[in-house]
Amino acid sequence: MNNNHLYFNNVFLNNTSSVVGKKEFEGPLSSAFDLYSNDEYFGKSSFEEAESEMVRQNLNVLFKKAQKLPTDIDYVFGGDLVNQCVATSFAIENYQIPFIGLYGACSTAIESIICASVFINGGFAKNCVGVTSSHFCTAERQYRFPLEYGSVRTPTSQNTVTASGAFLISNTPSIIRIKSAMIGKIVDKEITDANNMGAAMACAATNTIKRFFEDGNMKTEDFDVICTGDLGYEGHSIAREMLNLEGLDIKTEFTDCGMLIYDKNKQDIVAGGSGCGCVASVLAGHFYKLLSNNKIKNLLIVGTGALLNTNSALSGRSIPSIAHAIHLSTEA
Amino acid sequence: MNNNHLYFNNVFLNNTSSVVGKKEFEGPLSSAFDLYSNDEYFGKSSFEEAESEMVRQNLNVLFKKAQKLPTDIDYVFGGDLVNQCVATSFAIENYQIPFIGLYGACSTAIESIICASVFINGGFAKNCVGVTSSHFCTAERQYRFPLEYGSVRTPTSQNTVTASGAFLISNTPSIIRIKSAMIGKIVDKEITDANNMGAAMACAATNTIKRFFEDGNMKTEDFDVICTGDLGYEGHSIAREMLNLEGLDIKTEFTDCGMLIYDKNKQDIVAGGSGCGCVASVLAGHFYKLLSNNKIKNLLIVGTGALLNTNSALSGRSIPSIAHAIHLSTEA
Repeated sequence: MNNNHLYFNNVFLNNTSSVVGKKEFEGPLSSAFDLYSNDEYFGKSSFEEAESEMVRQNLNVLFKKAQKLPTDIDYVFGGDLVNQCVATSFAIENYQIPFIGLYGACSTAIESIICASVFINGGFAKNCVGVTSSHFCTAERQYRFPLEYGSVRTPTSQNTVTASGAFLISNTPSIIRIKSAMIGKIVDKEITDANNMGAAMACAATNTIKRFFEDGNMKTEDFDVICTGDLGYEGHSIAREMLNLEGLDIKTEFTDCGMLIYDKNKQDIVAGGSGCGCVASVLAGHFYKLLSNNKIKNLLIVGTGALLNTNSALSGRSIPSIAHAIHLSTEA
Repeated sequence: MNNNHLYFNNVFLNNTSSVVGKKEFEGPLSSAFDLYSNDEYFGKSSFEEAESEMVRQNLNVLFKKAQKLPTDIDYVFGGDLVNQCVATSFAIENYQIPFIGLYGACSTAIESIICASVFINGGFAKNCVGVTSSHFCTAERQYRFPLEYGSVRTPTSQNTVTASGAFLISNTPSIIRIKSAMIGKIVDKEITDANNMGAAMACAATNTIKRFFEDGNMKTEDFDVICTGDLGYEGHSIAREMLNLEGLDIKTEFTDCGMLIYDKNKQDIVAGGSGCGCVASVLAGHFYKLLSNNKIKNLLIVGTGALLNTNSALSGRSIPSIAHAIHLSTEA
């Protein structure tokens, strides 16, 4: 028990949208995103309001692309990193759609897709939206230091991505199926360095990927890409090593959204990207495009979240982490 | 369309457990709780660790009462009020059960029962646990002032309940059925007083209760009790008035967990109780007992959450709120 896959029948990823900041738009995936803002305030007067505005813009793009009205959506599932997830609630309140608030740190995007898939497959909904966001400036001042300090970063620290990704999950057939999911267990390997969250999350990613391949009947080579959420360079190499030690040799492309979103050589991002918007925007932009254009057929995407807060980190407590995985496929 | 009930078949509330603090144990519901602690630290060295310890104790009690092992549980759904919900994650990590983190402020307990019911009714799980908590001391210093200040309270301020409630939701038949649910929409009536969250949440409760009776075929008199989560005295009277203005005359007992948990005359609690643990412990303790002993047959319980954070309140932003409702019944 409780190591099982969730298998879905006739649940589809119908559409996606993504809005990003300047730095993300200057990265290698720029053409995959729907909208970007040069202004980190998104025209608002605080970073927190900016993040909500980014989510609102993203939902408006999604509804436009999918030709849906808010009244067509049964439930929205979402959350973000701002304390008490207020970036999401201030954004969602405009649409009057029943809302299920989630918190899984940077794994929230994948968590939202899984919950939406269960509601749809169970016959409780026809069209659901999953949406998450993160903003460099809200995260930096909440988790680290005021931006004005210009703090130097450690070599393993990651850059919180300014981005939002939104997903329309539906029982209406489309090319991309949400075939199965593996919900994460909280893993705590007593890692305490809040500037090395990739290492903490790598343990959770390893646990979930291992359980995914142990329980199901798929092999790693059945996937075109296996992609973790936002481990960054440091965490991703740890995950690869841990999986090898666990006897799981990944025989396909194994990458990470936090590595894909920036150009390591040209952009000053240290260990890669992170944040709720990282896996959300890379999946909604880059991978949705690859799947839609039949460049890849099977994707295992593993959202990873570090379940710390500022006080737990400052008081030297460990960083519990979690990872949720979904299998997206263009095959029946 | 998105105003609908979720109807469940063969989803049962199999068991519950509750752990409370000293003040809650001294209140009128004391005999309904399973465990209490005179020590607000629950034997730990910080309030945040205390809250996690309370959740752990509560889950241990639930597993004992229900004669279940953690490996019997498919998924845990839960969250709390501490930034990034760390009280829950540090508690859950010990059990190695797949975890779905939720954030709905004080509505989280009802949200967890709804999500668990969907997973079970959809055939994705057999046994799920919902669990939430709040702690007076973690909430007070996070949302208001350091306890050492001894701040005076305003007449409409509520007392955050130190309590955790846990629920075993299952497809194994038992006396209490989870019959239906109504998921909330975010309501924002531009209320900005963080010391009057009852007023903000009253608007959300009104919206959800109204939608519950408009969509379904039940009348208020079909329920023995209709109970809101933690509006307190001020918020509850506002909700009653708003429902009247909306043309919904509640013809049955209409009460609130924040009013039930303390003795207004003997305990210094100003406008009543609030917090994630309020509706959780009152439902897990008091109402579970009334339903199990056949004292009441039909309960509509409406969890209410104020979706603010410290910064949004201090910067004068409004308090978006949400309310989720479930219908519990001992009738087939």
